[in-house]
Amino acid sequence: MTNRPETPILDGIKKIDDVRNLPRDQIRALADEVRAEMIDSVSVTGGHLGAGLGVVELSVALHHVFNTPDDKIIWDVGHQAYPHKILTGRRDKMRTLRKEGGISGFTKRGESEFDPFGAGHSSTSISAGLGMAVAADLKHEKRNIIAVIGDGAMSAGMAYEAMNNAGAMDARLIVVLNDNDMSIAPPTGAMSAYLARLVSGKAYRSIREIAKGLTDRLPKFVSEKARKTEEYARGFWTGGTLFEELGFYYIGPIDGHNLDHLLPILDNVRDAETGPILIHVVTQKGKGYGPAENAADKYHGVSKFNVITGAQSKPVSNTPSYTSVFAEGLIQEAELDERIVAVNAAMPSGTGLDKFAKQFGDRCFDVGIAEQHAVTFAAGMATEGLSPFCAIYSTFLQRGYDQVVHDVAIQNLPVRFAIDRAGFVGADGPTHAGAYDTAYLGAIPNMVLMAPGDEAELKHMVRTAAEFDEHPIAFRFPRGEGVGVDMPKRGEFLEIGKGRVVREGNSVALLSFGGRLSETIAAAEILSTFGISATVADARFAKPLDVDLVERLAREHEVLITIEEGSIGGFGSFVLNHLASNGLLDGGLKCRPMFIPDAYFDHAAQDKMYAHAGLDRNAIAATAMRAIGNEKAANQVMSGLIDG
Amino acid sequence: MTNRPETPILDGIKKIDDVRNLPRDQIRALADEVRAEMIDSVSVTGGHLGAGLGVVELSVALHHVFNTPDDKIIWDVGHQAYPHKILTGRRDKMRTLRKEGGISGFTKRGESEFDPFGAGHSSTSISAGLGMAVAADLKHEKRNIIAVIGDGAMSAGMAYEAMNNAGAMDARLIVVLNDNDMSIAPPTGAMSAYLARLVSGKAYRSIREIAKGLTDRLPKFVSEKARKTEEYARGFWTGGTLFEELGFYYIGPIDGHNLDHLLPILDNVRDAETGPILIHVVTQKGKGYGPAENAADKYHGVSKFNVITGAQSKPVSNTPSYTSVFAEGLIQEAELDERIVAVNAAMPSGTGLDKFAKQFGDRCFDVGIAEQHAVTFAAGMATEGLSPFCAIYSTFLQRGYDQVVHDVAIQNLPVRFAIDRAGFVGADGPTHAGAYDTAYLGAIPNMVLMAPGDEAELKHMVRTAAEFDEHPIAFRFPRGEGVGVDMPKRGEFLEIGKGRVVREGNSVALLSFGGRLSETIAAAEILSTFGISATVADARFAKPLDVDLVERLAREHEVLITIEEGSIGGFGSFVLNHLASNGLLDGGLKCRPMFIPDAYFDHAAQDKMYAHAGLDRNAIAATAMRAIGNEKAANQVMSGLIDG
Repeated sequence: MTNRPETPILDGIKKIDDVRNLPRDQIRALADEVRAEMIDSVSVTGGHLGAGLGVVELSVALHHVFNTPDDKIIWDVGHQAYPHKILTGRRDKMRTLRKEGGISGFTKRGESEFDPFGAGHSSTSISAGLGMAVAADLKHEKRNIIAVIGDGAMSAGMAYEAMNNAGAMDARLIVVLNDNDMSIAPPTGAMSAYLARLVSGKAYRSIREIAKGLTDRLPKFVSEKARKTEEYARGFWTGGTLFEELGFYYIGPIDGHNLDHLLPILDNVRDAETGPILIHVVTQKGKGYGPAENAADKYHGVSKFNVITGAQSKPVSNTPSYTSVFAEGLIQEAELDERIVAVNAAMPSGTGLDKFAKQFGDRCFDVGIAEQHAVTFAAGMATEGLSPFCAIYSTFLQRGYDQVVHDVAIQNLPVRFAIDRAGFVGADGPTHAGAYDTAYLGAIPNMVLMAPGDEAELKHMVRTAAEFDEHPIAFRFPRGEGVGVDMPKRGEFLEIGKGRVVREGNSVALLSFGGRLSETIAAAEILSTFGISATVADARFAKPLDVDLVERLAREHEVLITIEEGSIGGFGSFVLNHLASNGLLDGGLKCRPMFIPDAYFDHAAQDKMYAHAGLDRNAIAATAMRAIGNEKAANQVMSGLIDG
Repeated sequence: MTNRPETPILDGIKKIDDVRNLPRDQIRALADEVRAEMIDSVSVTGGHLGAGLGVVELSVALHHVFNTPDDKIIWDVGHQAYPHKILTGRRDKMRTLRKEGGISGFTKRGESEFDPFGAGHSSTSISAGLGMAVAADLKHEKRNIIAVIGDGAMSAGMAYEAMNNAGAMDARLIVVLNDNDMSIAPPTGAMSAYLARLVSGKAYRSIREIAKGLTDRLPKFVSEKARKTEEYARGFWTGGTLFEELGFYYIGPIDGHNLDHLLPILDNVRDAETGPILIHVVTQKGKGYGPAENAADKYHGVSKFNVITGAQSKPVSNTPSYTSVFAEGLIQEAELDERIVAVNAAMPSGTGLDKFAKQFGDRCFDVGIAEQHAVTFAAGMATEGLSPFCAIYSTFLQRGYDQVVHDVAIQNLPVRFAIDRAGFVGADGPTHAGAYDTAYLGAIPNMVLMAPGDEAELKHMVRTAAEFDEHPIAFRFPRGEGVGVDMPKRGEFLEIGKGRVVREGNSVALLSFGGRLSETIAAAEILSTFGISATVADARFAKPLDVDLVERLAREHEVLITIEEGSIGGFGSFVLNHLASNGLLDGGLKCRPMFIPDAYFDHAAQDKMYAHAGLDRNAIAATAMRAIGNEKAANQVMSGLIDG
């Protein structure tokens, strides 16, 4: 709380009109103060640092020039919106960012009228903006819609679909392409190379020339032919033809940190009467904070840090993360089997595949933010006898769902899906919680679906996936560290469709699928203190289901509880369906499925989120107690009088 | 069988080498015979006519020039592959096409070594081809991979993702862009306009010039700078810069029906040592068959027809199709509420929205094959108070799943999803069966999910969706005609989350969700002939579940059977989970969920597919009989001795 930066101008901003009415010669100073404020607040909370620092000037300039919130700014992947939040009434909440009860790390409609669209995943802003622009037209309202999208996000097909649609319509839409040559990972793909050519080839045109050209030319389109001639001519000089061909009026590239360039162009664009416009703005991720500017990933996501030194205070753990166990296991298998290749969608570091790429550069493919392509590209490799591992987070795999069905499962191609971030993820909140994959993958014929109960199990599953080639196979695992079990030197091949019993009991059966296993074991401990004997089993497979194990548990216990870190329609449903279809519930077995309830859970510490969702040890124990009629014990546990 | 066309050259083609070795001066005649043969066979079977007719010359030329099946041709959306099938050993099976036990209407890996990739949905071929090309490189094998993709399919983001990835790699991949200016519907989008400019602007360059340019230039790339200079120059003249900027060597546009143009270019491309190449081929959908050439949709999908007159023998029905009931219901509501807008993804006719567009041109949006964008575009409109209906088939909505979760459901925006083709679809087979949507949508918080038991119910649901704006809402309905119930003048608003009892009984409860209702009622009739009294209920909603109805049925019956035309993890699972979680199964209720089993069902008549899947009246009745212990009656029903 000491050493807060001095921010006299920012302190005077009480409402958005104050930004709008600020004398233009103070805008630079305001931007500097916003940057200092943002660095200071993120140093306390952690969060996404580099992206926001790159768009400080852009944020200030947009709010100064446009009539927000009536004009609408849509920040693609909301994590670049910290300066925007500081300017739009949330400055005093910035130190609660990503904390339980605090504001979100992304844009969020419920949080502010200045957030017209929430965004946790990338590349949605042009589609949403086009919808808003069309709605304004239909309602005969006139307003500006501005979508700010990064160059990395432009590798996603969705952005292209939206450009393709917008370019053919006469919609009043402004796309600001924020080109920082770096999404989370180094840039990949032809579009990225193209943008680099635009910037390096012609460099920056004289700002006078662009501004003059704009005012001269925008209202002047008298004929399609004239426009086309001009397009080619300008395209040749500025290199903007690709966007022009897609029907956008292209402006740029311009320096996104130079307000003397930005402001007059935004003035002109605001006043222009034309169809869709693309402004190509070049920025530097991490701009204005030395340690971030100098880091390879530009401090994309950071822990709390010391503002002076840039040193982050990352929590130390003695147990490896699931991500690193996956990566190391895969490297080990790939050393033994040269058919193994790996695919990721712009997340080399998040998936751990950066390590794999270091060792097997020619067998690792980062395809950009392009999950649809990633899946089918892997399927193509599988047709030729390779063993592709497609490493995509649970929520991102939603983007490639149809491709999993059509290109992988219907054709029964042995693509391996390594699904990180299954279950709650903590500070990233509901947009990144991997809740649905067991349901949406489990419904697909041919698919084999595993989840490890601990980090050693994950290592077994990596080997199992590597060696199994009869069907597509997926394994889902949580964000964060393992539970500290001994690690095998190499994983073992697991028998497909077979679970394991971890602890024998006789009254209650607890059947866990995935990372809730340790809490399930803890729940059994709580039950034993109440004299209730519990069997604990680790299903390992949701599909094919270990029907022998399920039937044995059903036969030998009064109560059967399933536990998983996923939604309805997943593992518990498969167990219930098997039991019901085979008449194994007819005898009055007390079955209690436990899964993530039908709600979105706001960001909080991971274990807190599980407690809120009723998926921790206490809730599991209490569910068992209620099932056997011991309501009193259940209430004791849930009220915290007893705690495992 | 009479009047088959004379095909002396085609008759001599016994294996693919015969196409390869055919003297070049006979290729034209072979193409003509393939076309005649294809018209004749499709006149008998029905199927996709226009697309295949457009690529007859291309199919013959590719197999003549390339070393298939070692070289691989991937036909995007396999329905253009009929000429390819005729040339690759399946000529004698063409008259079984799309019939039960016959060959597929799409490419299929299991059907032929000449089908390296199955394709039911569009825009996957470049991704798959790139995977194969990369695999060949890694295995140090040299082969050509050719992806043939339509201009309509190029509007899909997935194709762009693949181009963007391929263009940045030096992979040996040939993309043939088959530009017929018409996918299923008239073309939409900026890319389509761009292609039209390429074709109309420069028209066709002299073939000599292209071929010479190719052989002269392809091996000559000495430096990136030289290449770039040349790119701009050529781009300016041929207009190919967009593809060049994405890293492809662009050739075209060329006439895809002129073998004197096609063959030398393919020769050159086959022998070229270079990275990815895009050949822009212009064809005419329906080429060479007068009635198809003259039809607006170029006979995209046809019934059996008379070859001489072109007259199709479409079955006559007295009941309206679900699609038309949806369309008419929506028009009726839109007349009363100007906030209603409609979105489709390149399926105006299939979804019935062509009718809507006629009346409300400015409120209907065909965004191209772009389901991801379609969903978020609709979400953007919903933020502005419009009432968007997003009409997308069940399997195609898989392409927009993440957008449904993030952009619609998490933000709780009232987008209405009209999901046609739920359940089995008949001749289009497993790729188009809408099996998973109840599971993948039902898992999402905030989503409301309905399915009509008959066509009148669908009309109610259209009105319900129109007037309900608290949450996103979806309704899924089957392909084909309704069951012939009386139609209301206008739909009624249904109480959210409430089902209805159709028939009262006391022993067995049959609870249907969706289009299996009529079979369920028929099953009750069968049961009654055996003296078993059955209640029949129509759930209407899978989410929110009518828990009062479910609990009443559970309480008052010995057996509760759920029936749905969807996969595991859907409606039946929601019922089971509710009952289990609330202890309502503890008393020994005999619950039997019936859903589409865990398998892909090959194309056949729709009712046959349901019989195979165990979801017809007999199977429902037999399930009830077995549950109450009357195995003998069940066997009688299933053996066909008794038939409702």
